[in-house]
Amino acid sequence: MVSKKYVHGVGMTKFSVDDRTTMSMAYEAITDALNDASMGIDDMGAIVISNSDTKVNDERQRHYSPLLASLVRRKMPIIRVPAVCGGGGTALWSALRLKYDNVLVVGVDKVAAAPTNLITKEIMAAGENMWEQDEGLIFPAQNALVAQQHILKYGTTHEDLELIAYKNHYNGSLNPKAPFYGKKVSLEDIRKGPMIATPFNLFDCSMTVNGAAAAVISSDPSDVEVMGSGLATDYIAPFERDDMTKWDSTINAGTDAFKQAGIEPSDIDVVEIHDAFSIVELIAYEDLGFCKKGHGKDMIRKGIVNLDGKLPVNTSGGLKARGHPISPTGLAQIYEIVEQLRGRCGARQVKSAKYGLAHNIGGAGGTCAVNIFRKR
Amino acid sequence: MVSKKYVHGVGMTKFSVDDRTTMSMAYEAITDALNDASMGIDDMGAIVISNSDTKVNDERQRHYSPLLASLVRRKMPIIRVPAVCGGGGTALWSALRLKYDNVLVVGVDKVAAAPTNLITKEIMAAGENMWEQDEGLIFPAQNALVAQQHILKYGTTHEDLELIAYKNHYNGSLNPKAPFYGKKVSLEDIRKGPMIATPFNLFDCSMTVNGAAAAVISSDPSDVEVMGSGLATDYIAPFERDDMTKWDSTINAGTDAFKQAGIEPSDIDVVEIHDAFSIVELIAYEDLGFCKKGHGKDMIRKGIVNLDGKLPVNTSGGLKARGHPISPTGLAQIYEIVEQLRGRCGARQVKSAKYGLAHNIGGAGGTCAVNIFRKR
Repeated sequence: MVSKKYVHGVGMTKFSVDDRTTMSMAYEAITDALNDASMGIDDMGAIVISNSDTKVNDERQRHYSPLLASLVRRKMPIIRVPAVCGGGGTALWSALRLKYDNVLVVGVDKVAAAPTNLITKEIMAAGENMWEQDEGLIFPAQNALVAQQHILKYGTTHEDLELIAYKNHYNGSLNPKAPFYGKKVSLEDIRKGPMIATPFNLFDCSMTVNGAAAAVISSDPSDVEVMGSGLATDYIAPFERDDMTKWDSTINAGTDAFKQAGIEPSDIDVVEIHDAFSIVELIAYEDLGFCKKGHGKDMIRKGIVNLDGKLPVNTSGGLKARGHPISPTGLAQIYEIVEQLRGRCGARQVKSAKYGLAHNIGGAGGTCAVNIFRKR
Repeated sequence: MVSKKYVHGVGMTKFSVDDRTTMSMAYEAITDALNDASMGIDDMGAIVISNSDTKVNDERQRHYSPLLASLVRRKMPIIRVPAVCGGGGTALWSALRLKYDNVLVVGVDKVAAAPTNLITKEIMAAGENMWEQDEGLIFPAQNALVAQQHILKYGTTHEDLELIAYKNHYNGSLNPKAPFYGKKVSLEDIRKGPMIATPFNLFDCSMTVNGAAAAVISSDPSDVEVMGSGLATDYIAPFERDDMTKWDSTINAGTDAFKQAGIEPSDIDVVEIHDAFSIVELIAYEDLGFCKKGHGKDMIRKGIVNLDGKLPVNTSGGLKARGHPISPTGLAQIYEIVEQLRGRCGARQVKSAKYGLAHNIGGAGGTCAVNIFRKR
């Protein structure tokens, strides 16, 4: 980042499997964010949009910048910054570097609109396709291997991962934007989940949904400041890495964001982590510096990351229970952090949070964006 | 732009229909550009990559940032900024706004690798798909309507468009990076071209090829300065516009770039224009301010835009004869302008060029990036 930036407004649709067009969802999230900012589209200098170029929906569209110009009826500079599941956080990182008074950031995707095999093929395109995905190492299998390594090396157990899923489902049941709002999932349900890839069962995996989320950022001060924004990449295939139990992109993006913010992990009060799979959340506790390497299990065993713990993680329900619509996910995290800092989260509100962090990943850690916010 | 930026190196593959992987082509263009800059990958602070998310090639890949990290073996910040045919210029615009000493910009696409009907379907995704493309108004038809309107309104003739095709094929025959290097195309050949969409025949349309192009930009001074960089969008569908004979995105991006540069269109010595179709080049003469509206025809009739004219346009051969690989096109234009300013273009070298301009379009003018350069 170059100069101080602030969040003026956030907006999002309910995440669901409803069959809506991307532009209908984008319109709702944009309007919601602009209203929240008490601004209009003419106040925006530029737009950054992140969305996947999905092969699974029926929109046959790749040129989203002018499609958005048509939607908002303004011929302004618009860039598209996709980064598969890490698109939302990467779009914010990019928008913070543009020199306009106000920039609108939008993430939108319609993925849960096709047969499962097509969705799987689409998501496989976010990974390595010569040695991994096409040989059967699709994302659940890939992340299961990561979990196996972590279990082997650090004594983490599947019970730890079940507690993470339970926590996130509990939080999601309190979030009106989540598809399972109001629906409780018991630890027993989670333990009995159908096996997916050892050690994962269904409840270790996030939910594919459709949706949109947006934010208005500005050079003018507001009640929420963006303190740091880090972006990093890693080699695309986990097989290229020496140690699968640490994710360099999380470490590097986090280190950069904390350096910009001038604060320590221990200063953070509320966190959204990219729990595409339960193990990813546990490893991120470690890689973001909230505990030492190998001690992620203690964070969940001791309840530190619970809603009433010292460091609540995924108060929104996370990718697990608020759902994961690909590109909007990173901006939905920012929606949650901003609303928590403002104290507007109702039943899932944490107490007196001053600093919040959003951690958004693309692929198996191929891209990571970490953004840190402060209540002023 | 915020602060002064310079081009230190440019590189590109030969444009062709050869069946190479995108990463093989990207590697060649990156190495070429780094060598040209006398730098190594460790000197780069970040990378901006632009490529299409093609459904036509067999790579099944959408997550290009970490794929590139694997290719260059560096886990640095990398963002992907696709904008269909305008991706290269838009990636440069984005890269100029990042705060790193040196940034590598890469455009790569493998499109000419499938049956024609699949290529057509892929390219259709750059346009409006509810009322236009799917109803038969694919890009050649859409641009033919634009030509019909211009002919009706301003007395432009198809002979004018033939002269543009002839000029660009002549220039391309002198460019070793062009697929038809050394091959002459006569005005007679052009007149006898098979009809595509009235008034267009085959020679009014650009060539689909594969390729990659790259540039190294820096805050440290070099012999080529980036003076201005404008980006604009328009409504996605020409039917949404009041007047099809002027392209607002060209006008707005050009105006912004000239304002930043502090020079006038009459100062420019050499130009690359996005001649996806012959009429697009003629209209851009007008919309970039090189002549008055409706007088584009005079630019070609009087030979002003010829290689030996006062304002040579598309000395590379343009999209017509150097070829149009989608995302790399905008960076191939910048390659040409930089090489012209440095006096390294051999048989197609223009005399004593000080100021050069590159005009890159996505879709039917849905996105436009205009970048202006100066020899120091």
